[in-house]
Amino acid sequence: MPLLPETFDFDGPFPRLARRLRLGVVGGGRISGMQATAARMTDRWEIAAGAFSSDPTRAKAAATEWHLPEERCYPSFGEMAQAEAARPDGVDAVMITTPNHVHFTAAKAFLEAGINVLCDKPLVNEVEEADALVMLAKQAGCVFGVSYVMSCFPMIRQAREIVAEGGIGKINQIHVEFMQDWMTPQDSGDAPHVKWRLDPAKSGQTSCVGDIGTHAAHVASFVSHLPLTQVRADFHVCGTPKPLEDTFFAWTRHANDVPGTLMATRLAPGNRGGLRLRIFGSEGGLEWDLEDCDRLKFNRFGAPDQVLSRGHGHGLSSRTERLVRTARGFPEGIIEAWGNLYTEFAMAVAARADGRETPVTWLDMPLVQDGATGVRFIDACVRSSQSDATWVNI
Amino acid sequence: MPLLPETFDFDGPFPRLARRLRLGVVGGGRISGMQATAARMTDRWEIAAGAFSSDPTRAKAAATEWHLPEERCYPSFGEMAQAEAARPDGVDAVMITTPNHVHFTAAKAFLEAGINVLCDKPLVNEVEEADALVMLAKQAGCVFGVSYVMSCFPMIRQAREIVAEGGIGKINQIHVEFMQDWMTPQDSGDAPHVKWRLDPAKSGQTSCVGDIGTHAAHVASFVSHLPLTQVRADFHVCGTPKPLEDTFFAWTRHANDVPGTLMATRLAPGNRGGLRLRIFGSEGGLEWDLEDCDRLKFNRFGAPDQVLSRGHGHGLSSRTERLVRTARGFPEGIIEAWGNLYTEFAMAVAARADGRETPVTWLDMPLVQDGATGVRFIDACVRSSQSDATWVNI
Amino acid sequence: MPLLPETFDFDGPFPRLARRLRLGVVGGGRISGMQATAARMTDRWEIAAGAFSSDPTRAKAAATEWHLPEERCYPSFGEMAQAEAARPDGVDAVMITTPNHVHFTAAKAFLEAGINVLCDKPLVNEVEEADALVMLAKQAGCVFGVSYVMSCFPMIRQAREIVAEGGIGKINQIHVEFMQDWMTPQDSGDAPHVKWRLDPAKSGQTSCVGDIGTHAAHVASFVSHLPLTQVRADFHVCGTPKPLEDTFFAWTRHANDVPGTLMATRLAPGNRGGLRLRIFGSEGGLEWDLEDCDRLKFNRFGAPDQVLSRGHGHGLSSRTERLVRTARGFPEGIIEAWGNLYTEFAMAVAARADGRETPVTWLDMPLVQDGATGVRFIDACVRSSQSDATWVNI
Amino acid sequence: MPLLPETFDFDGPFPRLARRLRLGVVGGGRISGMQATAARMTDRWEIAAGAFSSDPTRAKAAATEWHLPEERCYPSFGEMAQAEAARPDGVDAVMITTPNHVHFTAAKAFLEAGINVLCDKPLVNEVEEADALVMLAKQAGCVFGVSYVMSCFPMIRQAREIVAEGGIGKINQIHVEFMQDWMTPQDSGDAPHVKWRLDPAKSGQTSCVGDIGTHAAHVASFVSHLPLTQVRADFHVCGTPKPLEDTFFAWTRHANDVPGTLMATRLAPGNRGGLRLRIFGSEGGLEWDLEDCDRLKFNRFGAPDQVLSRGHGHGLSSRTERLVRTARGFPEGIIEAWGNLYTEFAMAVAARADGRETPVTWLDMPLVQDGATGVRFIDACVRSSQSDATWVNI
Repeated sequence: MPLLPETFDFDGPFPRLARRLRLGVVGGGRISGMQATAARMTDRWEIAAGAFSSDPTRAKAAATEWHLPEERCYPSFGEMAQAEAARPDGVDAVMITTPNHVHFTAAKAFLEAGINVLCDKPLVNEVEEADALVMLAKQAGCVFGVSYVMSCFPMIRQAREIVAEGGIGKINQIHVEFMQDWMTPQDSGDAPHVKWRLDPAKSGQTSCVGDIGTHAAHVASFVSHLPLTQVRADFHVCGTPKPLEDTFFAWTRHANDVPGTLMATRLAPGNRGGLRLRIFGSEGGLEWDLEDCDRLKFNRFGAPDQVLSRGHGHGLSSRTERLVRTARGFPEGIIEAWGNLYTEFAMAVAARADGRETPVTWLDMPLVQDGATGVRFIDACVRSSQSDATWVNI
Repeated sequence: MPLLPETFDFDGPFPRLARRLRLGVVGGGRISGMQATAARMTDRWEIAAGAFSSDPTRAKAAATEWHLPEERCYPSFGEMAQAEAARPDGVDAVMITTPNHVHFTAAKAFLEAGINVLCDKPLVNEVEEADALVMLAKQAGCVFGVSYVMSCFPMIRQAREIVAEGGIGKINQIHVEFMQDWMTPQDSGDAPHVKWRLDPAKSGQTSCVGDIGTHAAHVASFVSHLPLTQVRADFHVCGTPKPLEDTFFAWTRHANDVPGTLMATRLAPGNRGGLRLRIFGSEGGLEWDLEDCDRLKFNRFGAPDQVLSRGHGHGLSSRTERLVRTARGFPEGIIEAWGNLYTEFAMAVAARADGRETPVTWLDMPLVQDGATGVRFIDACVRSSQSDATWVNI
Repeated sequence: MPLLPETFDFDGPFPRLARRLRLGVVGGGRISGMQATAARMTDRWEIAAGAFSSDPTRAKAAATEWHLPEERCYPSFGEMAQAEAARPDGVDAVMITTPNHVHFTAAKAFLEAGINVLCDKPLVNEVEEADALVMLAKQAGCVFGVSYVMSCFPMIRQAREIVAEGGIGKINQIHVEFMQDWMTPQDSGDAPHVKWRLDPAKSGQTSCVGDIGTHAAHVASFVSHLPLTQVRADFHVCGTPKPLEDTFFAWTRHANDVPGTLMATRLAPGNRGGLRLRIFGSEGGLEWDLEDCDRLKFNRFGAPDQVLSRGHGHGLSSRTERLVRTARGFPEGIIEAWGNLYTEFAMAVAARADGRETPVTWLDMPLVQDGATGVRFIDACVRSSQSDATWVNI
Repeated sequence: MPLLPETFDFDGPFPRLARRLRLGVVGGGRISGMQATAARMTDRWEIAAGAFSSDPTRAKAAATEWHLPEERCYPSFGEMAQAEAARPDGVDAVMITTPNHVHFTAAKAFLEAGINVLCDKPLVNEVEEADALVMLAKQAGCVFGVSYVMSCFPMIRQAREIVAEGGIGKINQIHVEFMQDWMTPQDSGDAPHVKWRLDPAKSGQTSCVGDIGTHAAHVASFVSHLPLTQVRADFHVCGTPKPLEDTFFAWTRHANDVPGTLMATRLAPGNRGGLRLRIFGSEGGLEWDLEDCDRLKFNRFGAPDQVLSRGHGHGLSSRTERLVRTARGFPEGIIEAWGNLYTEFAMAVAARADGRETPVTWLDMPLVQDGATGVRFIDACVRSSQSDATWVNI
């Protein structure tokens, strides 16, 4: 029985599936909990298995915590991949939310078992690994999403459409930043969930660039339809000495030689979700701020400023509307954006299971190719920073 | 096996339950869909049964839509109450999201079957029915929640705590309003989901007062700790002629003779989720706006203005923090507030199932008594409006 | 030699005058200082004389303070009116900024001397006095302005034009409030500049209604083009006991039976310049807040929200633009609004001096008739409040 | 007779002067008009002479326009300097608002005549000229102000004090930008008041850097107390081809090796007065936006966010309060900031005329040294931009 209805409008609301898909969790902690919340919210996923911990006591606790049978709480992702692939009711897909250095081998294991993957960003720590995963996903024919969730907000999607329709004319500059403050206290690096983010063996060559800088880079390219082609970057450690940067500034070139700036920091007191995108064109500008995610400023030169918000009949497209759960004025937040990612992931997984051909324009979710682009961006930033911020191709 | 852990901190995070609770849905449409989304999100509920429609074709469609076995999609709530009460795996509770005039008999049926209830507001259309439900719930020993969800936002809870701690001194006035715009178009009343809201046989004596005015009344009393004692109200039909008011203005008296204003309308273009609460005291003021639900203005006279937001370590209490899923700056919205209601409802249902005595201060969720207060408020508004806006006791 | 150029565009920029007009000041304190600042700023006035104090020592100090010759600092407004009327270089007009109870006799003295007047609001304390001044001004042929300065902000003028052009359709409700906090401290009434405002012998029958409530009433009528016809009002003393109200709530009826609300208080911590106007119609809404005076929200139902701001080429009319001194984005404030009032007053005074006929649509400044309407509004509020908030005609 | 009172509190309100000072105007156009408005507003200046145009017809028109005797409207600044210096009632100071390339010779002429100067920014087009003016001003003993008016907003002054008192701890990064949109239209460069700004012979080596970039640089250093030491800059022409840059991005180093970013553009639709300063330290952050100039965000890590605003008793210092004309909540704008500059300039000119020694901390107005620093900043940006954005010392 097919999961997707035989007919539906690819531009319209996302269809219900014939059954809930089964999701496995690889990695514990708050991030997996939050993603699971979002996945459940879509009513298109149920959590069916997990590799939460190699420690048997913690694994057992996880079974209780997650309301899972103990035999589906695996001590390792390798065993999980094999066992789940062998079950008739095995997981349709897994989310990978481990520290960065584990992403590659975990994702590889599931792809080789033919299981679809949704992996945290940054995808991996090395460009070669990223390329390998792109190849592996292709060979396996699996859906491989990467959690650049910022591109899943309705207002970001609408912004992307406005650009495509020429609403701001020819783009002439792009600015994006991600400002946080949680590393401000001197001892903030001692917390366990922070420690690995400052350990090059786990976090890779960067900390702030990989963790939040790539969000900024992805959303800037996604909305502008202009890939990043070059970057020059300067890394900083602003507060307490640390093995990796906590702040970086970059200048960017997008396709068509469009210049821009990009920066991120975790030492900007008063900022927490300060992902702010601004795109300026020959006829108008777009501005979006994660902390005010339900609104999109769309200013056309010579006309009154405009604020778009979620909700029927106020200028949003049907493709944006289908990502919206509540009426205009009743705020939605980042969990709903995660929900949108999991809804689109479900659509893609179902389409693959159905052996269905779908138009390339159907879904806008971030895929493994976007993940690989992010890794290239990180790598280019590192190389630039090591060469006195020279221009480096991405 | 008890649902709640034997020991936990009543002021701390809400505990996990030994199993997910089973929720039944009474009524169809967008509201039940949205509440089900929120319930799932908590991971403390699964939708297990429903009475979605008396039309067999639509009932069957609902089974598919909700991923339920057909035998648990009942053609009437009466049959559902009996059948579910008889099952060993019967629902632990039901949500009632029918049009208002059905609430009473539906709630009665489930209470009499010993099933816990979470009912939409306004609770019922008559004061006598409200009183009867309070009594019935007491006799049945059931948990009976009412969906005044606005009191479940973290910032509203924090505001209530600030008042309790004397943060704004002695309260001297309270202003609340709920401004929407969806009835602005002349033909807005023709839509099916709107029609019943303007039909006195279904909506009761009021439309706007019952639908959104009672939200405003509840949240004002909830945050101020001052029940409403008197009201004078003036009803208006501002746009197209309608059988019930689309706008009303009221003056209020809260306990301690504190004066206030309260108004609501659905004809305020540009407003959609315009529930705005302002409480002013001898030392400070609190202001909250649903459209900016993640922030709370807390101004102390003679000091810089302050803005509180969700997130650890920025002045929120542990009781507020336990209602928060994401870090400060990563917005949450109304679905999360619904989630908080369903989490607290789950705690209450589990405590009852465990035969557990719990401190009265444990949960702040709105209960049937609050629902009855809302019905009394509506009734008082109607009587005042019919008597040239004279003062009427609530 | 005429003061105004013989030809100019009545809808265009205000013309320069052949010479600066001479302004007299009646009353001391901060308000007169601020108005003098605004008058100077227009470069169409110079302060030429004053009656600042009956105390000779303070009068002399005023001469120094105001850079005036001692003989033009008069011990009383009566002497000033006579002396200035007799001088060839006598004042063209006076501003009256005394406590309320002095307005009537002062204005009368200058009108009888043929001197134009700009008087503080509320115009006077009694309806009969207001009517008498309207008559006197007419007989004298003098320009008599009243300082409802809130109607002189560019964004308020633009709002008025939008209403006139049908931009929000048929008006269906009007809400206005003026929220301040400076009387929050228990001892705030002891300050000298506050004391008279709470003394019925000086302030008249009201304190808050006359001082800030009439601003709200004026601006609501001005923008909507709908005079107030009826009011029901409830007076409150919210903090420390006082001889006059510090807070009041009102319901209003404007022409065409349009309902509204109006309230004002000085005990709303966190609010200082909280004059907020909202007008909702069948097609759109307008919202303006004094604390954000450079912006005007203009929302049309079914379209993105719009924010208008001062500055050429962004949708403002030429009549609005002529009130603007700086580019869009370079904020102007309340002193500039006062400047606009003094500019229009100068135009009117010059036109009268030139014996010039001017189209009634030329200037929108508030006149003695508006002042009298304000006094009627106060009187109606008092009578309503004394009769259990019954409806009273204005 | 001394201009300043013999005793007054240097930290308290600015004293009245014994007479108004006489100001000359060098240069015409909107900028001089706006500054004259501000100067008049202070009541410490009167416009007494001018060199508005070398064209006799336009010079005569200016006499009428400015209400000046024809003999004091000079055809050249050279004649003006000599004639005014010779008059017993000659000007106390001049404002210079010509195109940039005239600043040097004009300022030199007045300094050599012993007349105080307030000159537009950028001070001059060459570093050597800037140094010469610093020397000349010293030799002449004249007060020489430069119109970095952004540092004259009360909230900017308060921010500077907060930094000095350690309110945000040790500064770790500084971001400033100035975003405008008026060059967005393709033909915007054709307007006469724009043309010279894009002509290297008049505007100097830069357009956007000198015009608005130096405002950003000044305010960042002023508030942080950390001079700029190095810059790397990249110039862009974003829209229509132009002889000079319309956009530039820079990275900066302030004293103590504090890193930062600085950018400016005139092609950011929706932005007009988008001068935004953010300073982040080890304990807190400050954020200010010219378009919302009356508010200052002051966030301390781990505490609720704070918003400071003008007005007594809400946390502002007496030195900030003396720059404030209206109560909190009654907005002031940029003309008032100009007024503050002219007030302080008047204080300095009067002190010099009185031969008075004043503490260096008395006034914070920008002086010729700050102007020279701005010229050095421009020069460093140019050299950096020409060398592939290498680091250049300022």
